[in-house]
Amino acid sequence: MEDDSNHFSKPETPNTMKAEAEVEERDPESNSSLSEPLLKRNRTLSSNPLALVGATVSHIESLDYEYLSGLVFFTGVNFVLTLIAAVLCVCFAPTAAGPGIPEIKAYLNGVDTPDMFGATTLLVKIVGSIGAVSAGLDLGKEGPLVHIGSCIASLLGQGGPDNYRLKWRWLRYFNNDRDRRDIITAGCSSGVCAAFRSPVGGVLFALEEVATWWRSALLWRTFFSTAVVVVVLRTFIEICNSGNCGLFGTGGLIIFDVSDVKVSYQAMDIIPVIIIGIIGGLLGSLYNHLLHKILRIYNLINQKGKLHKLLLALSVSLFTSVCQYCLPFLAQCKACDPSFPEVCPTNDRSGNFKQFNCPDGYYNDLATLLLTTNDDAVRNIFSSNTPSEFQYTSILIFFALYCILGLITFGIAVPSGLFLPIILMGSGYGRLLSMLLGSYTNLDQGLYAVLGAASLMAGSMRMTVSVCVIFLELTNNLLLLPITMIVLLIAKTVGDSFNPSIYEIILELKGLPFLDANPEPWMRNLTVGELANAKSPAVTLSGVEKVSRIVDVLKNTTHNAFPIVDQDVPVPGTVITGATELHGLILRAHLVQALKKKWFLAEKRRTDDWEVQKKFNWVELSERELKIEQVAVAHDEMEMYIDLHPLTNTTPYTVVESMSVAKAMVLFRQVGLRHMLIVPKYQGAGVPAVVGILTRQDLRAYNILTVFPHLATHKVQQKHK
Amino acid sequence: MEDDSNHFSKPETPNTMKAEAEVEERDPESNSSLSEPLLKRNRTLSSNPLALVGATVSHIESLDYEYLSGLVFFTGVNFVLTLIAAVLCVCFAPTAAGPGIPEIKAYLNGVDTPDMFGATTLLVKIVGSIGAVSAGLDLGKEGPLVHIGSCIASLLGQGGPDNYRLKWRWLRYFNNDRDRRDIITAGCSSGVCAAFRSPVGGVLFALEEVATWWRSALLWRTFFSTAVVVVVLRTFIEICNSGNCGLFGTGGLIIFDVSDVKVSYQAMDIIPVIIIGIIGGLLGSLYNHLLHKILRIYNLINQKGKLHKLLLALSVSLFTSVCQYCLPFLAQCKACDPSFPEVCPTNDRSGNFKQFNCPDGYYNDLATLLLTTNDDAVRNIFSSNTPSEFQYTSILIFFALYCILGLITFGIAVPSGLFLPIILMGSGYGRLLSMLLGSYTNLDQGLYAVLGAASLMAGSMRMTVSVCVIFLELTNNLLLLPITMIVLLIAKTVGDSFNPSIYEIILELKGLPFLDANPEPWMRNLTVGELANAKSPAVTLSGVEKVSRIVDVLKNTTHNAFPIVDQDVPVPGTVITGATELHGLILRAHLVQALKKKWFLAEKRRTDDWEVQKKFNWVELSERELKIEQVAVAHDEMEMYIDLHPLTNTTPYTVVESMSVAKAMVLFRQVGLRHMLIVPKYQGAGVPAVVGILTRQDLRAYNILTVFPHLATHKVQQKHK
Repeated sequence: MEDDSNHFSKPETPNTMKAEAEVEERDPESNSSLSEPLLKRNRTLSSNPLALVGATVSHIESLDYEYLSGLVFFTGVNFVLTLIAAVLCVCFAPTAAGPGIPEIKAYLNGVDTPDMFGATTLLVKIVGSIGAVSAGLDLGKEGPLVHIGSCIASLLGQGGPDNYRLKWRWLRYFNNDRDRRDIITAGCSSGVCAAFRSPVGGVLFALEEVATWWRSALLWRTFFSTAVVVVVLRTFIEICNSGNCGLFGTGGLIIFDVSDVKVSYQAMDIIPVIIIGIIGGLLGSLYNHLLHKILRIYNLINQKGKLHKLLLALSVSLFTSVCQYCLPFLAQCKACDPSFPEVCPTNDRSGNFKQFNCPDGYYNDLATLLLTTNDDAVRNIFSSNTPSEFQYTSILIFFALYCILGLITFGIAVPSGLFLPIILMGSGYGRLLSMLLGSYTNLDQGLYAVLGAASLMAGSMRMTVSVCVIFLELTNNLLLLPITMIVLLIAKTVGDSFNPSIYEIILELKGLPFLDANPEPWMRNLTVGELANAKSPAVTLSGVEKVSRIVDVLKNTTHNAFPIVDQDVPVPGTVITGATELHGLILRAHLVQALKKKWFLAEKRRTDDWEVQKKFNWVELSERELKIEQVAVAHDEMEMYIDLHPLTNTTPYTVVESMSVAKAMVLFRQVGLRHMLIVPKYQGAGVPAVVGILTRQDLRAYNILTVFPHLATHKVQQKHK
Repeated sequence: MEDDSNHFSKPETPNTMKAEAEVEERDPESNSSLSEPLLKRNRTLSSNPLALVGATVSHIESLDYEYLSGLVFFTGVNFVLTLIAAVLCVCFAPTAAGPGIPEIKAYLNGVDTPDMFGATTLLVKIVGSIGAVSAGLDLGKEGPLVHIGSCIASLLGQGGPDNYRLKWRWLRYFNNDRDRRDIITAGCSSGVCAAFRSPVGGVLFALEEVATWWRSALLWRTFFSTAVVVVVLRTFIEICNSGNCGLFGTGGLIIFDVSDVKVSYQAMDIIPVIIIGIIGGLLGSLYNHLLHKILRIYNLINQKGKLHKLLLALSVSLFTSVCQYCLPFLAQCKACDPSFPEVCPTNDRSGNFKQFNCPDGYYNDLATLLLTTNDDAVRNIFSSNTPSEFQYTSILIFFALYCILGLITFGIAVPSGLFLPIILMGSGYGRLLSMLLGSYTNLDQGLYAVLGAASLMAGSMRMTVSVCVIFLELTNNLLLLPITMIVLLIAKTVGDSFNPSIYEIILELKGLPFLDANPEPWMRNLTVGELANAKSPAVTLSGVEKVSRIVDVLKNTTHNAFPIVDQDVPVPGTVITGATELHGLILRAHLVQALKKKWFLAEKRRTDDWEVQKKFNWVELSERELKIEQVAVAHDEMEMYIDLHPLTNTTPYTVVESMSVAKAMVLFRQVGLRHMLIVPKYQGAGVPAVVGILTRQDLRAYNILTVFPHLATHKVQQKHK
């Protein structure tokens, strides 16, 4: 049997478990050699133990023991792999489940999810992702690779995991929000680059989908990091060309090379291209809608405990494996056509014409798509110049199955990416559409699959330029560019008219206070003064404040910053006295640090520069982890004073109380703030120096609407107009 | 003679003047047919009237009449073409000279250059660019195409040229700064797309080099506009495939197709790649430095008057033509190698092996590079698998000539782009380097030319991602990507350590108040309060102001906005009275509009909403052109009042006086402001409501340093540390 297959395929070590599983299932009776004439072999179907479930005469009872043991082995191995991935995620790093991209997007917007970039998360993500992808689940390694890239970037930037950090001085230069954001952006684009071998696509993905703030310098820094990734990849591929790395490195830098497709489209081909785009947009927004519903149900299940999470993941794995193994029996065997560019049938790990349950000289087209890795499935369905390779029913089953799997797999507790499920679904849809259009179109079926995948990506994720470049770099065919662009733009436009992008839906589901690029229209009708009046008044401290008051304020509030206001001071350069001075804003962390270092004064006085510089160094002041509960203040110290002036940020961004919330939000987001002070528009004796303080939470549409519900009705009215 | 050439070339109408000029210069005696054996023909050189100026035996006297008339014809035609372009630019639209990209960059930063996007500029740019490029000057059509794209976008956005605007109501929705900027950005990327047939490159160029503010929505809008450009281009190419459009449309969507180059680089090839990058960076910054000097000299010449401008342009044209025609005589004729992929020698318009002064079976390699269009020169020097095509001295002469031409051509008064001169220079340098490295490298010479061009682009213009994608789309070879990226990044880094990018140098030379992305370090040591104290105090108006005072203020100041401050008002919700209220900011245009519409009140009172809405509509208020000199106010009206409250922007962005200039500048640029109010940090009776007002000019480093020169010395000290 082994000899037989070697007639027409290179001997290759079947070093994955799945390959072994397939080897076992080969038909022992089908040893007619290839030297026999093709027509003669075609007629010897009846002697084979075929399970033609879907054919007119159904022989379920002939499903013999070998296929059953194959099913058990296949399902069992996948079950164990899923179990490993799920246990790791559930028990050690819950943040490693899912793609991680929404959280990274939120982080770059200024929202930190705890334990998102730690060493445990990184390890669980790597191992879990390998497990989940090997288990044949309908999920990709792309999202997890983006998260892995960001984790590595974050760990490098802070000098190692939390408990074992390197103490090098220069590492502290990165210990600020902006540099951490930049490093994580670079890690994120490196991840995309590694996933798709697409350096420019990686940069654009970070720019279009993930980053909130963008500078020209960041553009070429991320570009540099992806260049390094490509060079490393290239080196590995070169080393592995000698064949020492098993299956790694095949395919070169371009994954799905379709540059040999003759792209000869005319003006009339624009019509099917527009149709692909419109349907892709509709399907994409429908997918977003349904996934939203299913994720809400999954959230309810997952909240019930770890066991429920595990059971959910494992049942999805079982369902996937059984479908993948059993559905190919529904397909009719197709005869190999000698004009096919590849060896047919193949029993190798990769290859386009899987034999599975078919006799020699025949192949099972559904097995070609289902009983393979996701990457190979995409490669097979993208394959060009093979208009008759797949049957209509096979592609229909493939598309329907991956629609279901794409919806039920994403929310389970394993590392999972969204790119590949959508590409699989989209390529199925594209190929199906080309079959339906039939003779009305001259474009290649493989091209339809590519365009279908692109349209669904744009319809669901709403990315345009980055998807375009990623597809360009995946397929190595520049002539596809114009029609890909049209498909993407149409699909995005259609999708946008129904619901937001899938990442925004996930962000909202996770309750992350993401600050949108555009303020809601009704925010123009509310001033920050009104907003500040609706919340409890800001807690202000004096420049030289009593220790007891500071301890009291720190213990009884959760604010992260406090305005410093000095009463009864003279205005320099004038004769005015008794004025109130807005000195600035002090961070909670600095107050705690002052208490910890016992920066106490016996009397109420301003300190000198040298005293401060002796007491604090900037490394201590950049420390943010310290809690007030960790600091003990003696009873007699409570009556002493602290001079807060030197620890205050004297240049906080401010808005006048008459500013609209919409404009304040633009400032907040554009400059990347955490706190914004509201100053009065009146000037006179008795007017407070600070009206209030705004944080990210105050500016969230949802939070504002709970306080000002009439704005929501106003919003609905506007929509109805 | 004509028959002879038709033996080995497709009959093609020589429909450019240059092609005709070449036809005349053909050697009448070289009619030995191709059927003769090659070796035999090689020996019959002596009977030809060769002018081997550079050879050992020099026969200058044999330079016969035909070559002289060719020179006169060639130079004359180029002279006339340059004259047309220069006269148009000098007399009708001086803003059409040069590339226009720096001005567009400044516009998108908030600096409007007058007459930049008008209909006259557009027409002159189109005709002038055709003239200048046809004249064989060392300049490209790429920069002008970007400007043309922006002009068209601007005209479409405002509904036509200034005097013949369409009056459609919906066009007024675009009549605001942000939408105009967006439209011009889209026009700019469409221009790049049309120039290089590079849709993604166009988007990235706009993003990396031109735009100051960037939103995710803008990304896909520019992407849409470039997609339309590609579809239109594609349609034209398809129509022209029938051969009805002359030479238009040859080459398809990819201009310099090098996808047939076998890119098989190994790890060791990284060394020559790094060398290309370093030298490219050095050459690029040297080019920037020298161009800066020459542009300053040219500015002095151009300031002397129109005649000087014309003479300068015409002498550059003469010099270029003479060099292009005479230098090829220095090259030795090379024998055609039958292994060459193309017809050799060619006497066609395009083609790689120009015969020029050589006998049949021979070609002049320098004529191949010089006596052709710039595009063809690039195509020829990029040509791959032809390691022995060019001689060392020919490439050296080519490189030296284009270095000189690249420096002296740019500043003349014709529409000119910088891309092509730099590509020409860089490709010469790359090919030269590959010859010098010789057997030390395995990479193709054409590949070196591509990389050399990329390195000089990055070294001079400091673009990375956009150049990378443009080159990818120009050359259609994805495998070049990793090494191109490395070359670009190294060249940019090397260049950045010497001087700013060429566009920044031009912006500075033109004196445009461009607001940089990053504030200078010394700006952290200056507060906006100090800055405001150094200038004359802000002119404030009352909410209900006397007409005479408004007229007085408008006539005697040049400010574009005035703070509105109400005195002696009660603070709502409190018992405080006699406070000062900062009501907002009013624009000069709105004040003039109020005077023009005679929005006068007999007594000092606040108006009601309905009065205002009856008097003004928003179309009038968006009008910015009206001058105070155009408005007549009667003598008795001078004593009346205007209620400015309804016309005031009540939500101006403000900063507290203690804010550092650096942080204020970040706010100013990020939010895209024109005016910023400074409010006091003190609160009390007698404190003014507004400390000052800041504009773009106030925040320019140069202007601040003239008032605070000690900061400059501080800056130098910092540098010396």
